[in-house]
Amino acid sequence: MNNLSKKIGIIGGGQLGKMMILDAKRLGFYVITLDPSESCPSHSISDEHILASFDDEKAIRTMAEKVDVITYEFEHINVDILKKLEDEGYTIYPTAKSLEIIQNKYNQKYTLLKNDIAVPDFMLVQSTEDLINAGQKFGYPMMLKTCTGGYDGKGNYVVENEKLIEESYRQLGNGTIPLMVERFVDLKKEISVLACRGINGEITVYPVGENIHVDSILDETRVPADISKKCTEEAMELAHRVMEIFSGVGMFCVEMFVTKDDNILINEVAPRPHNSGHYTIEGCLTSQFEQHIRAITGLPLGDVSLRCPTVMRNLLGEDGESGIAYYEGLDKVYNDGIAKVHIYGKEEVRPKRKMGHITVCADTIDEAVEKAEKAKRGLRVISQKG
Amino acid sequence: MNNLSKKIGIIGGGQLGKMMILDAKRLGFYVITLDPSESCPSHSISDEHILASFDDEKAIRTMAEKVDVITYEFEHINVDILKKLEDEGYTIYPTAKSLEIIQNKYNQKYTLLKNDIAVPDFMLVQSTEDLINAGQKFGYPMMLKTCTGGYDGKGNYVVENEKLIEESYRQLGNGTIPLMVERFVDLKKEISVLACRGINGEITVYPVGENIHVDSILDETRVPADISKKCTEEAMELAHRVMEIFSGVGMFCVEMFVTKDDNILINEVAPRPHNSGHYTIEGCLTSQFEQHIRAITGLPLGDVSLRCPTVMRNLLGEDGESGIAYYEGLDKVYNDGIAKVHIYGKEEVRPKRKMGHITVCADTIDEAVEKAEKAKRGLRVISQKG
Repeated sequence: MNNLSKKIGIIGGGQLGKMMILDAKRLGFYVITLDPSESCPSHSISDEHILASFDDEKAIRTMAEKVDVITYEFEHINVDILKKLEDEGYTIYPTAKSLEIIQNKYNQKYTLLKNDIAVPDFMLVQSTEDLINAGQKFGYPMMLKTCTGGYDGKGNYVVENEKLIEESYRQLGNGTIPLMVERFVDLKKEISVLACRGINGEITVYPVGENIHVDSILDETRVPADISKKCTEEAMELAHRVMEIFSGVGMFCVEMFVTKDDNILINEVAPRPHNSGHYTIEGCLTSQFEQHIRAITGLPLGDVSLRCPTVMRNLLGEDGESGIAYYEGLDKVYNDGIAKVHIYGKEEVRPKRKMGHITVCADTIDEAVEKAEKAKRGLRVISQKG
Repeated sequence: MNNLSKKIGIIGGGQLGKMMILDAKRLGFYVITLDPSESCPSHSISDEHILASFDDEKAIRTMAEKVDVITYEFEHINVDILKKLEDEGYTIYPTAKSLEIIQNKYNQKYTLLKNDIAVPDFMLVQSTEDLINAGQKFGYPMMLKTCTGGYDGKGNYVVENEKLIEESYRQLGNGTIPLMVERFVDLKKEISVLACRGINGEITVYPVGENIHVDSILDETRVPADISKKCTEEAMELAHRVMEIFSGVGMFCVEMFVTKDDNILINEVAPRPHNSGHYTIEGCLTSQFEQHIRAITGLPLGDVSLRCPTVMRNLLGEDGESGIAYYEGLDKVYNDGIAKVHIYGKEEVRPKRKMGHITVCADTIDEAVEKAEKAKRGLRVISQKG
């Protein structure tokens, strides 16, 4: 069978799924999506759409029967369903086994630590007493997290002092959800490295991106990152090792902290294309989405070198705005002629919802940062006024 | 109304339509296609598909009522239908008026000549006697062409000598189709320049591409073209003037001849994105498809400078092969890691049918040519063997 005739199933029809499809279609693949919404970004561009919730085992099974490989655009899936399908011989990439470890942040960190990868100090939390002990060990502030399900700052709580222990514990489920706590890292930079592993074990590592978060949500990615050569090499080497540890097939994003004394700690691993990798669409010859499709269909991986300094800026829904999305100031961005515009096609804007992004390529990173800032200024996603 | 909320209708669902849609969807637009085939490349990625023949007035009208602007991916459309719709106030870009002139090669050339643009000598042919006269005036060989409907060498006949006059006249419709004849140009290079004009008259001109045809079908485009600086500037200036002459809105491709003594003659103008402009997807920040979508929706045009030397090679169906398409040697192309692969998604391969293309970016044009040649070698689209 020719790799090209493989059919791909994607669980999740958000922007990551959409961008996978845009590349998959260029490469000539047939794509089926599964998402509970008919107006999700992927719906109109997939060959088939299965309208079902993400934990609808029957629907996922229907998709599995129709395709040659299943992938997903977010990690908060019922992994038991995927494990069952995998056991029955269906192909799922990244594998349900690697997803299961990564899905649980405690297991993820424990696996990294066991493999001599530096991570922030952490411990499981099963009571407020555990938190008091952690406070004595790690000092304040410390970071309380749900072991599963968190993203974009959701499921995190910065425990500033001992007085907030009760409140933080209560806020994150009061013991109903597994919790962990981490020593707060006095960091210099947040960086991320995208890496991809093929079925045959081939690994490619993208350039290091520097991430700037606002309210715990990614706002900007700058590539190359403004870090030392030593840090850059170490970060890329770390990403490579992470791919070996999890034996993942497909794109992974390894988020890291650079500490004030230039050490690198791994913060989190996502088993999928990542918001901080959107720069690869214009910044590299092979985007993270194409690379993912190549990996999961068994094609050799593509070139990942940086074509030029590139900056990505996220486009989120404005605070207090919900309703039909309107892109205020977008004409001005086009007018500047420099920024590449990506609109995800979500009908409804909600506060902080990821609605699109812009990318700027330039001769220097400073120029790219400046032009992206200029493009972003005045650009707002609000709800349509009458 | 925000430009972004405009709905776009595209007549024709081939590869040009597909690539328009891939960019339109990234930009957030809603797209309706019209094509008689359910398995055409555009079908699965458009928001709506109208299954109808290209001269189905009722179907085109249905589309016109649903969208804000109609465009097309090929010029051999019944222009009377478009003119009627235009008169009724529907928006069609490029306008039916400019399409009407361009559609007829004689009128196209006459319009250019009237505007002091150099074209090969030409005359109308209404009888074999006209051809004999042309032979005396232009010498042999000379090029007999149908005034309408030709493409990829179809509708052309090289009249090598007077003895072939009867045969050539017979072959091209025996007087039932309007014909013209042109003086044969002793050319050094074939080049093409893509140019785009916005609704407000803004014009952008892409770098000059050098085209290599095999059996009258484009095989390779190299950018930048290996021509003198003077020729490059003149070619780009000519493309700019052509855009003003036809007042076109949208992408146009201006094909030109560079003569042995470095003069430039315009061969043909196509009122749409063009095969020789596929290099812009990787070679420029704004592809010809994005630029077209920006132009027809009234957005400002994007940056068209060349990011790096780029070579495009076409991928045609092998001679003698018809049936379900199989891409022999494609894995090797991916393995090289350098060429970007575009597979149009046509179910059936036919001899010389355009099935896909590959693009190679490199530091020098020689390197790009060499790598593209290496990638292309062994790559064949054949019919699937049992």
